[in-house]
Amino acid sequence: MSVTAAQGFRAAGVAAGLKPSGRPDVALVVNDGPDAAAAGVFTRNRVQAAPVLWTRQVLTDGRLRAVVLNSGGANACTGPAGFADTHATAEHVATALGVGAGEVAVCSTGLIGVRLPMDQLLPGVTRAAAELSATGGGLAAEAIRTTDTVSKQAVRTSSGGGVVTVGGMGKGAAMLAPSLATMLVVVTTDAVADAATLDRVLREACRTTFERVDSDGCLSTNDTVLLLASGASGQSLPEAELTELVTAVCDDLAGQMLGDAEGSTKTISITVTGAASEPDALEVGRAIARNNLLKCALYGKDPNWGRVLAAIGTTAAAFEPDQLDVSMNGVQVCRAGAPGESRDLVDLSGREISIVADLHAGDAELTVRTNDLTDGYVYENSAYST
Amino acid sequence: MSVTAAQGFRAAGVAAGLKPSGRPDVALVVNDGPDAAAAGVFTRNRVQAAPVLWTRQVLTDGRLRAVVLNSGGANACTGPAGFADTHATAEHVATALGVGAGEVAVCSTGLIGVRLPMDQLLPGVTRAAAELSATGGGLAAEAIRTTDTVSKQAVRTSSGGGVVTVGGMGKGAAMLAPSLATMLVVVTTDAVADAATLDRVLREACRTTFERVDSDGCLSTNDTVLLLASGASGQSLPEAELTELVTAVCDDLAGQMLGDAEGSTKTISITVTGAASEPDALEVGRAIARNNLLKCALYGKDPNWGRVLAAIGTTAAAFEPDQLDVSMNGVQVCRAGAPGESRDLVDLSGREISIVADLHAGDAELTVRTNDLTDGYVYENSAYST
Repeated sequence: MSVTAAQGFRAAGVAAGLKPSGRPDVALVVNDGPDAAAAGVFTRNRVQAAPVLWTRQVLTDGRLRAVVLNSGGANACTGPAGFADTHATAEHVATALGVGAGEVAVCSTGLIGVRLPMDQLLPGVTRAAAELSATGGGLAAEAIRTTDTVSKQAVRTSSGGGVVTVGGMGKGAAMLAPSLATMLVVVTTDAVADAATLDRVLREACRTTFERVDSDGCLSTNDTVLLLASGASGQSLPEAELTELVTAVCDDLAGQMLGDAEGSTKTISITVTGAASEPDALEVGRAIARNNLLKCALYGKDPNWGRVLAAIGTTAAAFEPDQLDVSMNGVQVCRAGAPGESRDLVDLSGREISIVADLHAGDAELTVRTNDLTDGYVYENSAYST
Repeated sequence: MSVTAAQGFRAAGVAAGLKPSGRPDVALVVNDGPDAAAAGVFTRNRVQAAPVLWTRQVLTDGRLRAVVLNSGGANACTGPAGFADTHATAEHVATALGVGAGEVAVCSTGLIGVRLPMDQLLPGVTRAAAELSATGGGLAAEAIRTTDTVSKQAVRTSSGGGVVTVGGMGKGAAMLAPSLATMLVVVTTDAVADAATLDRVLREACRTTFERVDSDGCLSTNDTVLLLASGASGQSLPEAELTELVTAVCDDLAGQMLGDAEGSTKTISITVTGAASEPDALEVGRAIARNNLLKCALYGKDPNWGRVLAAIGTTAAAFEPDQLDVSMNGVQVCRAGAPGESRDLVDLSGREISIVADLHAGDAELTVRTNDLTDGYVYENSAYST
């Protein structure tokens, strides 16, 4: 159900012909209200796709009535003509729904540097608008897939009396910054919440979920996460509780993305403990997550902890090299910067791998998630343009 | 001839049994003088191997009589015991040669986190000392190979009357910072030059060669580049001329390393023009060189210039996204941040690929070199520990 699990939302997914495969490639999500509050978080890449530029702009008033998403083309690095295409798409949605174009967000994903075939996209939008349904969340989630092998959907509900629902869909084996490929996420809720609250909730949810997934260190031009509230439940939640629900949905989607990362065979959680600060812990976690040599070794089921230390050594975090401890799947293979228990005790045969690096420099701690680097990844990213 | 091309040097390479394959794994280079001036440049990784710690220390007085190098073990993350092993190795060389241990540099490469088998290494050093020869440069270059498929050697001579020679050997498909695997380089010259001059010459030579090769973004714990001067030619050169010769040798070695990078099929030069400053140009060049998605695309002969722009966008360099130009093998596929000439015109079938990115933000320009990301790289780094 994903984006239509919460009351007040309809969605659709159709095949407009943007993908050579003929699979669904246009999704539409509509907020029927009564509220139209919304917030967004976007890529930090300075080269931003036209739909990112457009959606940032329309979100300045904290209102959205609809989100139109397409796969089959990123509409990035397409110049003023590409921006005009995004604008025309939003106008087309607005006309079909009887709302203002300034209430329509646009998200695109696919190859960079190619114009979208508007003669296929706009009729597709018309069809999607005609097929909107309160059970259309699954079809919408299908339509935003690119190299995803499965659609990603998640739903959570509040535990109190008047039930509030949060649902979301996502695409990408990715993170917000950086990403393996474009990550697009739409989260909807029927809670009553104003735009300022949604903005705080969404930023906090992203910070501890998508922002801590680092699949391949590459930051997309199109990453977008949107949160829409219809208020249709008539219920408002304490901000902390709403944050918890939205975070749970984002965390679930992030995990699904990693589990489906291009060519991956391992899902790797890297927990940095004993850091002097959270930024230190994050820098170290990311450095480990981005080390190609380590990621290859883990693909090969090799507990090569020296590559973990080599990665830590590239950071500016507070630590002493001779105090570093590293555990892999519960075996402390490195103690005080030197060999600890035998690496032969480490079993890396399963998909889940846990690495714990203790800096012994403070009390801060966090976990970054990544995946391995495989010949499957190389194949998917060399055999055809994405 | 490499390190024995210049007068005043002898070298040897022997098989001590450190490598399971039984191939040569211990090299010795001796400076017979009359001078013993030397300089070194080391990894910036904060986790530094015992031989790096040792060699930095003995180089503080700018003198070296010998360099002993071993493959088959990095002696990194081995604690105080590992440092004692390095010290013992230097003492052993000193005794064999009749010099002081403080005049002996040590370099190691191989797996991190494992102690060296001293009962094999020390007898190997004894044999190497017995086999020292003024034509031993080639054998020494062979003995420092790890995953290198060929040894790397380069020689240049001055064009003036009294000839000065600079020769060098290297291992690694790598760079000084960061590196694909440990890079070890020893350069020798028979020029008369003091340690301070050698230090300036070597830093400048590294800055424009090894520092601008970025194979896989991974910074080794063991990277070392040493420059030794015997003064045996009796000639001194203007500093600029010596810098030119040493730079030429380093550039040649850097090119050989890239040409032999693990699993690579493409050698990629990334020239950044129109940058506001050299640091800006370097940041952009490195960001492009480290983009896994681009490196996979180039492996697949796909001129996916959108990934170049996405990489540029992750930097803090001065530029406007709608002014970026990108050429691939002479075809300007991106003009003003939008599609330029057809990507179909780009021929990426050869090994050499040239990418030019013009930031239109100033006059600074430089070139960073890298290679593609292939299933061969994944295989070499996952199938066994390195």
